[in-house]
Amino acid sequence: MKVGIVGITGYSGMVLYTLLTQHPQVSEISLYGSVQESVALSDLIPAFGKNDILVKPLNIETIQDEVDCLFCATPSGVTGKLMQPLVDAAFPVIDLSGDFRLRESQLYENWYHQKGRELPSAEKITYALPEFTTHYSPYIANPGCYATATLLGLAPLAQAGLIEAGSIITDAKSGVSGAGKNSAAHTHFPFINENLWVYRLNQHQHIPEITQQLGEWDKNLQHIQFSTTLLPITRGIMVNTYAKLTRSMTQQKLEAIFGQCYVDKPFVRFRGAQLPTIKEVVGSNFCDIGVVWNSTTQIVTIVSVIDNLMKGAAGQAVQNFNLYFGFKETAGLPLFPIFP
Amino acid sequence: MKVGIVGITGYSGMVLYTLLTQHPQVSEISLYGSVQESVALSDLIPAFGKNDILVKPLNIETIQDEVDCLFCATPSGVTGKLMQPLVDAAFPVIDLSGDFRLRESQLYENWYHQKGRELPSAEKITYALPEFTTHYSPYIANPGCYATATLLGLAPLAQAGLIEAGSIITDAKSGVSGAGKNSAAHTHFPFINENLWVYRLNQHQHIPEITQQLGEWDKNLQHIQFSTTLLPITRGIMVNTYAKLTRSMTQQKLEAIFGQCYVDKPFVRFRGAQLPTIKEVVGSNFCDIGVVWNSTTQIVTIVSVIDNLMKGAAGQAVQNFNLYFGFKETAGLPLFPIFP
Amino acid sequence: MKVGIVGITGYSGMVLYTLLTQHPQVSEISLYGSVQESVALSDLIPAFGKNDILVKPLNIETIQDEVDCLFCATPSGVTGKLMQPLVDAAFPVIDLSGDFRLRESQLYENWYHQKGRELPSAEKITYALPEFTTHYSPYIANPGCYATATLLGLAPLAQAGLIEAGSIITDAKSGVSGAGKNSAAHTHFPFINENLWVYRLNQHQHIPEITQQLGEWDKNLQHIQFSTTLLPITRGIMVNTYAKLTRSMTQQKLEAIFGQCYVDKPFVRFRGAQLPTIKEVVGSNFCDIGVVWNSTTQIVTIVSVIDNLMKGAAGQAVQNFNLYFGFKETAGLPLFPIFP
Amino acid sequence: MKVGIVGITGYSGMVLYTLLTQHPQVSEISLYGSVQESVALSDLIPAFGKNDILVKPLNIETIQDEVDCLFCATPSGVTGKLMQPLVDAAFPVIDLSGDFRLRESQLYENWYHQKGRELPSAEKITYALPEFTTHYSPYIANPGCYATATLLGLAPLAQAGLIEAGSIITDAKSGVSGAGKNSAAHTHFPFINENLWVYRLNQHQHIPEITQQLGEWDKNLQHIQFSTTLLPITRGIMVNTYAKLTRSMTQQKLEAIFGQCYVDKPFVRFRGAQLPTIKEVVGSNFCDIGVVWNSTTQIVTIVSVIDNLMKGAAGQAVQNFNLYFGFKETAGLPLFPIFP
Repeated sequence: MKVGIVGITGYSGMVLYTLLTQHPQVSEISLYGSVQESVALSDLIPAFGKNDILVKPLNIETIQDEVDCLFCATPSGVTGKLMQPLVDAAFPVIDLSGDFRLRESQLYENWYHQKGRELPSAEKITYALPEFTTHYSPYIANPGCYATATLLGLAPLAQAGLIEAGSIITDAKSGVSGAGKNSAAHTHFPFINENLWVYRLNQHQHIPEITQQLGEWDKNLQHIQFSTTLLPITRGIMVNTYAKLTRSMTQQKLEAIFGQCYVDKPFVRFRGAQLPTIKEVVGSNFCDIGVVWNSTTQIVTIVSVIDNLMKGAAGQAVQNFNLYFGFKETAGLPLFPIFP
Repeated sequence: MKVGIVGITGYSGMVLYTLLTQHPQVSEISLYGSVQESVALSDLIPAFGKNDILVKPLNIETIQDEVDCLFCATPSGVTGKLMQPLVDAAFPVIDLSGDFRLRESQLYENWYHQKGRELPSAEKITYALPEFTTHYSPYIANPGCYATATLLGLAPLAQAGLIEAGSIITDAKSGVSGAGKNSAAHTHFPFINENLWVYRLNQHQHIPEITQQLGEWDKNLQHIQFSTTLLPITRGIMVNTYAKLTRSMTQQKLEAIFGQCYVDKPFVRFRGAQLPTIKEVVGSNFCDIGVVWNSTTQIVTIVSVIDNLMKGAAGQAVQNFNLYFGFKETAGLPLFPIFP
Repeated sequence: MKVGIVGITGYSGMVLYTLLTQHPQVSEISLYGSVQESVALSDLIPAFGKNDILVKPLNIETIQDEVDCLFCATPSGVTGKLMQPLVDAAFPVIDLSGDFRLRESQLYENWYHQKGRELPSAEKITYALPEFTTHYSPYIANPGCYATATLLGLAPLAQAGLIEAGSIITDAKSGVSGAGKNSAAHTHFPFINENLWVYRLNQHQHIPEITQQLGEWDKNLQHIQFSTTLLPITRGIMVNTYAKLTRSMTQQKLEAIFGQCYVDKPFVRFRGAQLPTIKEVVGSNFCDIGVVWNSTTQIVTIVSVIDNLMKGAAGQAVQNFNLYFGFKETAGLPLFPIFP
Repeated sequence: MKVGIVGITGYSGMVLYTLLTQHPQVSEISLYGSVQESVALSDLIPAFGKNDILVKPLNIETIQDEVDCLFCATPSGVTGKLMQPLVDAAFPVIDLSGDFRLRESQLYENWYHQKGRELPSAEKITYALPEFTTHYSPYIANPGCYATATLLGLAPLAQAGLIEAGSIITDAKSGVSGAGKNSAAHTHFPFINENLWVYRLNQHQHIPEITQQLGEWDKNLQHIQFSTTLLPITRGIMVNTYAKLTRSMTQQKLEAIFGQCYVDKPFVRFRGAQLPTIKEVVGSNFCDIGVVWNSTTQIVTIVSVIDNLMKGAAGQAVQNFNLYFGFKETAGLPLFPIFP
């Protein structure tokens, strides 16, 4: 397979490159970036060492001749216009941006603050949380990092119709690499080091993507109270989700439900009542999940952790790539976290 | 005033010492520790510089002759036995431990895992959250760090009877200094650095202290869903609390309720919809609070932050000391955070 | 005393404000910034709480009527032009920038990369490392952070003529707050967190300031090998200096020389062979110093630590202010580090 | 190949396991630890996921039947006694401890503070810095982490006889994972976070290992001034080495010497005057090196960085394993750092 990566100089693009370079089914990688002329990757990312590979300007018209599949790691807003021709052409694209995740134009406008964009019809796009995707269209919208951790934590209960409507509260936290490679006041080391910052409360653009998917699993689940906190760490997301249930519950039943849901999913490690820490997954494509039932408050706590650049971005993109093309689901993905 | 500090080598004891040394009403400080013989403070804590002050073994029988007030920063479990004679003698003590915060022996036994301890009658002890304490007994139980931040966040709504019973969910996070000065597997740098760890879920000993106080404000509030997460920072606590309300609400009304509650409280800075960050209070005795109403989910989010060693321990102890003895509430307490 | 601060929104300016607010000899503080119109400090720095103080545009012509002394915390390059009238007027200024530290225009041009600026005559300016300043002119050039830690480490040996010419090697490390409040690629959290970065090797603008002062103490000391490394911490500098000596040495003699030099200096704590850590001084105006003689290599290692925003900037400025105006040297300066 | 790992629960052992699991020439891994009975790896290290592999008690007598090569990641002091029979048997061992690195018993006694241990004759042991090892005995002493970074930085100049005797000064810094998995006062998060700690100055046990190797390259190089600083990061070492040279030098010549030395070494990336940062190698087996000549001081600065658990321990062990058994030098070793 020949694959291309657009947006190589962003964090997701970098990680995609390191994964695909070592992928057993990938024979050639083409790199595209917002460059005027071709430039050596070595000059852009010295940490990747000396090699001959170039980052080229993207030409959307010839891309189909150059590669068999394109990974797109450009920002939301930019991606929509850039990729529309490939959506129309039904060319295999794995898109890490948020531009094709939502199905209603109005939702996109409200949450992404971009006016007048018409979304393609639903059958052209698959929003692909790979654990629960059974049919893939060529254009794959890779889920957002927060959405991935939140949805994997809620899926077993939501699919079973066990969650009381209006009761979901999610307190999500992310490392700073989730904010991208450009420096800003809130990613300035003296600001966020030794600090926590709650941002975009009730306004994070992953909210509609989460409720859209939850609604598919259980049409009663229309809202989610969702907060996002920036952590003084580089990589990793922890999501704590709290919910009330529609039926009586015990810790044992809870563990059985989660255990069964994920028994054959290679990248979800259900840990029972042992709550996972972020470092147990950083560097890997795993989502680790723990659950605890509180019989006093009758509330379930679900803790799910991922590496935001792996299972939350590049790793999940490769997982979707594997599933779409019929490769082994784990091909090219590291089996261990970087620990310690 | 002559004051004493027991437990000078712990983090709270250290901070107490730095505050009391600079307190305008304190003329002399005696230090007590678990030492066999007197030892120079300089030898125990070189960062405090060379001086002649000694850390002496505590003799509970003579303490009343040596000081006018005792600050007790010894661990829960130890403190109860050690301080009982001073409770009986109605001698002024400000106790930073958890041993006299609860009013029911059974609760203490359940949450502190210590059997057969009889608690003194309620009138001998004041659990003193200083913003809401109107009458002080000589023996003052200083609130726990998590309890302080959580209760100050909930007080305006709880006191107004506005919180829907069973709806409070608190997601609290703390820096590692909250775990004390002794090293352990979970405070080992390679474990907690670049990590988050949810610990003692539904089992944290500050839970009964919070519900005890909430119940006084509104007898319908008997439970709280409460999680605690260890953060890779040294100092500071952030508490996110979510709740449903008993009456219809707007952001404006919410801000009015909080604003009015804290208008004359020097150490609570209500920030409206501007959510505070931890570093805005570290080094100070402030509790900063922000609130946001979500009209879609009909849930309020309250974010409160404190320095766990100041407003969560030593600073609040000095604040209680000031109020008990009739000094200015802010005496001896820094007016600014250490920022950046 | 009425004092003014120019550059309040930078880190040094912020710290200056917190110190001067609590200074016993300061009755009024005026704040100046690069603002078009007066703006409330509360709006610029919410962490400092609500108060009525304004940040005003600086008018250099009327400043002498408004304050008795000006603290200047504007950047190098800007400061020179801005403050020249006050140099000429012999008005008391404590200048934290690098613009008046060097005595030769050519040196300034080479190291600050600014052409054609004429420096005032030496008698108008005092480069004031307060431990060794005996005479003050009204315009005080406050030493740089790296220079302060390096010079205090070398002073006892340099003043005694004990250092072998050409043998000084300094490996200095600084927290990120030293780079100021503006975000940049190298202060972006994902870059510097879990990282070290050696920058401006052999080109740091504090080098000529160090050699200028060393040359005054011992004219043989004309060069210094000097490296600077950015640390993933917010505050603090550690300087390791290595040197060969002109006479035979022992650990005991070494400690005697340092001990004697600093016996009556309130802000230098000589620690003998116990090497200080950064956190032992952060939040205070102390410079802690340890020395170790290696009899095998015949090389002395000197470790000196400061808080770059205190003894390295604002704290030292207040110390100079105290000495210039004849106040107690320690007035308004915290006596303890923030520890832990 | 069947390989064994002793000491799987330490950090080096863990990393060894993740590398060898993915090594193309390794068909089976046996794990040994200080356990009384076999225990599932999943129970000891949950982050490694569920699998059937057991950690067994080590039986040195049967080990030769069970594996073809043993990686030994037990502590210095323990290892010597444990492995002596395998030294005698000339069985392939790659030993990550310090017990067989030195060739003189007296040196070992002085630096490791262990009395009366007789070291095997030199021909039985290879101290193998793989870039410069031409002949391997079966028992391989893997170099220490600090020694690796320091020696790779000095090798080109030392081998060319260019370094002035007595002039080498090394200021080395390491992340906390270098101190191992057991918690201690100096690895307690509130101590080392936001801090730096210079430890074992002039007494670090890697000093004799460095001088032993330097002496082989140039018998004039008998001493090194060597300091070690603990950093508030988990992984990574940066070594700054300063030296005077025996011949006149330019930046260009310097780069030519280093470039030539490492032209065909896959794991040393010479970066010229671009000084490397730690994160550019963490997660990989690379040692990145930059050099800068200072024509004013006539001193060279060499900056070398490694991941202490990879090139400084487990990665280098696999590199030695590859070379000893004639596999491709890079087999089983990641080609990219974990970045960001």
